[in-house]
Parts: sequence; structure tokens; C-alpha cells
Amino acid sequence: MDRDAWHERLETSADSPSELFEHFQTRTDQRLEYQYLPDARHGLERGTVLVETTGEVVRGYPSVPRVLVLNPGVRNYFESDRITLEEKLNGFNVRVADVDGTTAFTRSGYVCPYTTARARELLDPADFFADHPGKMLCAELVGPENPYTVHDYEGIETNAFRVFDIRDRQTGRPVAPDRRRELCEAYGFEQPPTFGWHDTDDAAGAVRDAIEQLDAEGREGVVMKSDDGQSILKYTTEATHHQELGHAFSLPFDYGRDFLFSRLLREAFQTVEFEESPERRRERARDIGESILLPMAETIEAVADGETVGERHTVRGDPATIDALLAHLREFQLTLDVESDRRLDGERVVTFTKVAASTNDRIEHYLDGGIVDE
Amino acid sequence: MDRDAWHERLETSADSPSELFEHFQTRTDQRLEYQYLPDARHGLERGTVLVETTGEVVRGYPSVPRVLVLNPGVRNYFESDRITLEEKLNGFNVRVADVDGTTAFTRSGYVCPYTTARARELLDPADFFADHPGKMLCAELVGPENPYTVHDYEGIETNAFRVFDIRDRQTGRPVAPDRRRELCEAYGFEQPPTFGWHDTDDAAGAVRDAIEQLDAEGREGVVMKSDDGQSILKYTTEATHHQELGHAFSLPFDYGRDFLFSRLLREAFQTVEFEESPERRRERARDIGESILLPMAETIEAVADGETVGERHTVRGDPATIDALLAHLREFQLTLDVESDRRLDGERVVTFTKVAASTNDRIEHYLDGGIVDE
Repeated sequence: MDRDAWHERLETSADSPSELFEHFQTRTDQRLEYQYLPDARHGLERGTVLVETTGEVVRGYPSVPRVLVLNPGVRNYFESDRITLEEKLNGFNVRVADVDGTTAFTRSGYVCPYTTARARELLDPADFFADHPGKMLCAELVGPENPYTVHDYEGIETNAFRVFDIRDRQTGRPVAPDRRRELCEAYGFEQPPTFGWHDTDDAAGAVRDAIEQLDAEGREGVVMKSDDGQSILKYTTEATHHQELGHAFSLPFDYGRDFLFSRLLREAFQTVEFEESPERRRERARDIGESILLPMAETIEAVADGETVGERHTVRGDPATIDALLAHLREFQLTLDVESDRRLDGERVVTFTKVAASTNDRIEHYLDGGIVDE
Repeated sequence: MDRDAWHERLETSADSPSELFEHFQTRTDQRLEYQYLPDARHGLERGTVLVETTGEVVRGYPSVPRVLVLNPGVRNYFESDRITLEEKLNGFNVRVADVDGTTAFTRSGYVCPYTTARARELLDPADFFADHPGKMLCAELVGPENPYTVHDYEGIETNAFRVFDIRDRQTGRPVAPDRRRELCEAYGFEQPPTFGWHDTDDAAGAVRDAIEQLDAEGREGVVMKSDDGQSILKYTTEATHHQELGHAFSLPFDYGRDFLFSRLLREAFQTVEFEESPERRRERARDIGESILLPMAETIEAVADGETVGERHTVRGDPATIDALLAHLREFQLTLDVESDRRLDGERVVTFTKVAASTNDRIEHYLDGGIVDE
């Protein structure tokens, strides 16, 4: 398909094919050559994928806005009379589409060999794609065994997918949440827990109830969706903020300052909106401090002891998939420290650390007496 | 004096007069026209001032590096066999020079009308400049009544100067610390407290002792200096880090993310180097959390209650000086909320708030339900 035809077909604000294509990058993964968009541009989402040989499009998953204050944030944001609340799961967001067979694309628009293999095996979406070839499954890969995020959910020992959205591949338009629930049930895809439908005007209270319950269980938060699924908004728990701060401060030079600041901000607006007592607020404040200092000090001590710090992951699958995954990660300039590489029940199970290069380097520099020039 | 002559005379790495002068800006304050350098460039310090009509130079005060780890940081940094420790005061760093009469220049290179008037009155350096016309006094303006910083020191009710350095105006070269102490005593200038001279190899321990004592008193930290005064290094207390975090998070959108992160980093290296017990470290962590969340939540509540937040200052002086100061501050696009404007003992005493525009605006935006697009 040529660039003029793409430019015609995509719903883009770019004035010309060349303006559109200057931002796309070309990759080949598992014999599939495609172009992907590293950042949102011209009305197209980050991670939008084009396959020139077949003319296929896989639109990116849109960035989900957040409010810091539920009341009036929720009411102001939605135009529909009612919204549905679903649990926001802490995992890895992928789009699973029938492009050269079932293929999983990361948020950034890469084909992930590991997630692709897991999707084929665990979702088994052949029937779905036979009936709905133009759709994509937007799913969260959850469970402790994945190469990107690590969060435990009770009852999930390795990996599982939760389909939170079904969208048209070419336009990116979602099916309505109710319809998605029916489709997922019909094809046997698991979905995130729901907190039901609520009048938009009263939904802030329902979100708060859901958040309190999820927070007590150490879960991430909620996603709110309009009737037609086109408007989405998120809100997260205190437990998640502290957990993210703890993780980020365990690798302080590998996380952006904006990452840290934004979590602190969420905490401040939440304690104000929830009208916490002075004792409760102080407890939250102390937890924040512990999430910041203790992991950071532990990491400094580990580096002082000669350890290499980074993010530790375990992955499981057939040997070829694991090879492809490790090659894929190394291609992104990641240094991997493989801790163990075993066979279990016919599968290959590898535990490795993605070396946090900046954190190791900067901490060593300061431990050696390096100066900070301000 | 023409630009070729300046280029010859200044110890600069700029290849040509035009390369040097493209970074200078022109200002006129109190009938003095001068050029100043907003950022360090070509071997010249930020805040370097040139007066074209008289050919006078006032070099900027150099940026003072910091170590995060005293051992081996201090030993590695200094080449001299011994170093002296002095208290680092929490105030406002100015250079006082005889340029069109006694004039005080801020760190950025502006003539400050308030500090100039206070310096003429409190330092009264006419005798010193008569004997040493080519020198400048590098001093900290401390005490609660100043337009820039607010920190209380016991016994200082309004303002006081502490001369921590005497330098050649044209070369920026300091006199040795011992000689500076003699000169200050001879001319009646007060100085920061000293913790004496120490062998460089053992100085880390002495710094730590000084830091513990200063921390207990809520004071800022120490500056270390080589024999000749040319090498300087700083290190600060836990109390200061928490106080700075508290202040910054009370105006979270008006302080840079780097400001916040750097204080947290200092804390982490300090708790590791000081080998704090788990209880002591947890206490430090909790204090950090309280310094972050409580001021931020209070500010959000204040904005929610319709208050305008910002930095509150009180200044005192003759009416014309106060007028000049307020005009000077407003010239930098600051919005001032004047809370009181009184006469006391023949002086004008004004209390005002520098409105923190970003913090007010962003908090109002989020309280109104504004979304965060991530």
C-alpha cells in the first residue's frame, strides 16, 4: 500500500503523507516488517502500527487521562449520563491482533515475542478473530512471570490476560463496555472485575468506595468508562502510589523526576479530598517517607557491597520464545544479568535482572566521593 | 572601555570579544549601568558584572560543589594538606563591592537596592574599601527580615551580614581563610563560626562531628576550604534537607523537580554513610514523608479555601529603599500581596507575599477537576 493511500485511509490530522510518515520508524520482528509511531502525532496514538505489505493498521491504545480530584473531576469529564467502573490492573498493556497470525504489540508498538506466545497459548483467540478480523483485544498481561512488570495477584501463579477493551484495529474505536463484556464471555476471555454502572453525577462516591476496597487489598485503582467506551479516566490507590515510589526509589537514577513528583501530587490531593484526620494523614506521610528513603538506602548499600542493581524478572515458555525475548530485550540496549535458566515441566524458566545502568553508575560515582556541581 | 580591552583583561576562555559578550545582558539600577552574565560561561562565574563606563569588574561567586559521601569525598577533593571548616549559613549570598559607592550584587548579578542599603548601614565598609579598593566582601545576609530567604538565627532580630570570603573583584581570587579572618576582625565584620583546621585525611570525621552538632541546632551545614581558600566544598544537615523539602512542597509547582530529588538523594547517602540503625533510619524516612505531604496538603487546603499562597517576607528600611526594592521585585514579574506596611522607629516595615503563580494556578486547576494527561 503506498503512502498516499495510507494518508487517505488513516484518520489523521497530518496535511500530507510525508508529514505523517516522517515520525514512523521501521522494524522487523519475527519476519513481520512494520512501521510504528513512537509518540502520539497527528491524531494517531503512540504505538500505532502499519504493515505496508498487507495494508493492515493496528491503532495505538490511547493515553488514559487522570483526575487528581474526583469531585468535581469525574462529573466534569464525562458527557454520558452513566459511567462504568472497572478495576485497573497492574500489569503490562498489550494489543492482541490478527496480523500475520495472532500477534501482541506493546504500548510502544513493538511486537513482543514473549507476549505473542503467551497470548496464543492463554487467550487462544483464533475463533474470535475468525468472527471479528478487524478487531483487536486490548489486554493486561498480569501475574508475576513477565519481562516488564511484577505484581502478584492471588491465584495467578505465572501469567494471565485480562481483556479490558475491544477496539477496531483501523479506527481505534472501542465497542461499548456492555458489548465487550458479552463478547469476552462468549469467547472465554477473562476481564477485570467490574464495580457496575453509576450515574455520572454520583459516581465520585462510588469511585471512592471502590478505591477504599482496592487500597485495602493493595490493588492499583479504577478505570471509568462512558456508555460508548470512548471516554476513559483513571484514578489510583494510596497503596499503588507508595509501591510505585518504593520501586522508583530503589532505582533512583533510572526513573524520571516527573515520575516521582506525580505520585506525591496524587497523594496530596487524595488526602485533602478524602478529608483525612491529622493522624491518618501523618500515617500516610510516614509511609511515603519510608517508600522513598528505605529502598533508596538499601540500593546504595547493595551497590556499596558490590552488587549490581536492577529490575528482576522471571519468564517462562518454550525455549525459542525465551531466546527471542532475550534477544528483543538486548536489542533495546538492556544489559541482562541471568540469575538462573532452568527447564520445568518442559518449559524454560529464566530469572534475570535488567541492569539499571544509571543507578549503578551514579551511586558508584558518589560512593567514590564524586562531587555534585550545583 | 571597549570590548577588545575587556576580552584581553578578563581571564576568559572565549575566543573573541563577540563570543564573550553575546551572553551578557545590560541593566541599569540606581543610575548604574552595567552588564551581567546570567549563567556561567567561558570561565566566568554566573553573576559576573562589568561596568563599561569605569572598566570595573565584579566576578561572580563560584558555584560550590558538594559531596554526598564524606569519606572518601573530602580526601579526594582537596589537594591541600589541611582544610578549614566553617558553618554554612542559611541566608542570601551577596557580593559587596565599591562600585559607584558600596553596592551589593546578588548571586545572579543584579544590584539589590535593599541589600545595598543594609550593607552600607550594617557593614559600613568605607574604611575597608579605602584600604582595599580592588576587593569584594562575599557575605551572607541572614536573619528573618529580608526579601529572599527566611531563616531564624538566635539573636538576629532583623538582618545581619556574615562575611565568609574576601575576593579580588577582577580575578575572583580569594584571600586565604586565615588572612580573611584577620581582615574581618580588623574592620569589624562578623564571620561565620569556625570549626578550625583539620588534616585533610581525617577531616571527614570532623565534618561529621560538626554536622551532628549543627543538625541538633537546626542549622544548615558546613563549608570546607583549602589553605589558600581556592577549593571549597559543602555538606548539609538532615534538618536542612527536611526544612527545604517542607518549603518546596508547600509551593510544589514553583520548585523544580530536581530541587526535590537532590534533597532526597542527600538524605539517602547520609543515612548510609552514617550507618544509622533501622529505627533511626525509619525516623528519618518518616520525617521526610511529613516534610513532603503535610505542607503540600496544607497548601492545597489553603487554595481550596480561597487563599493566595506564596513566600511571605518582611523587610525594613528607609521608605525610598523599600520603594526601590518593591519596584525591583515587581520588575521580575513577581506579584506581591502586601499584607502590612507600617512605620516603626522611623523605618518602614513591609510584610508581603510573593505570589507563587504556578502553585496557585495548578492547584486551582486540579481542584476544579482538571485532568492530568500522562
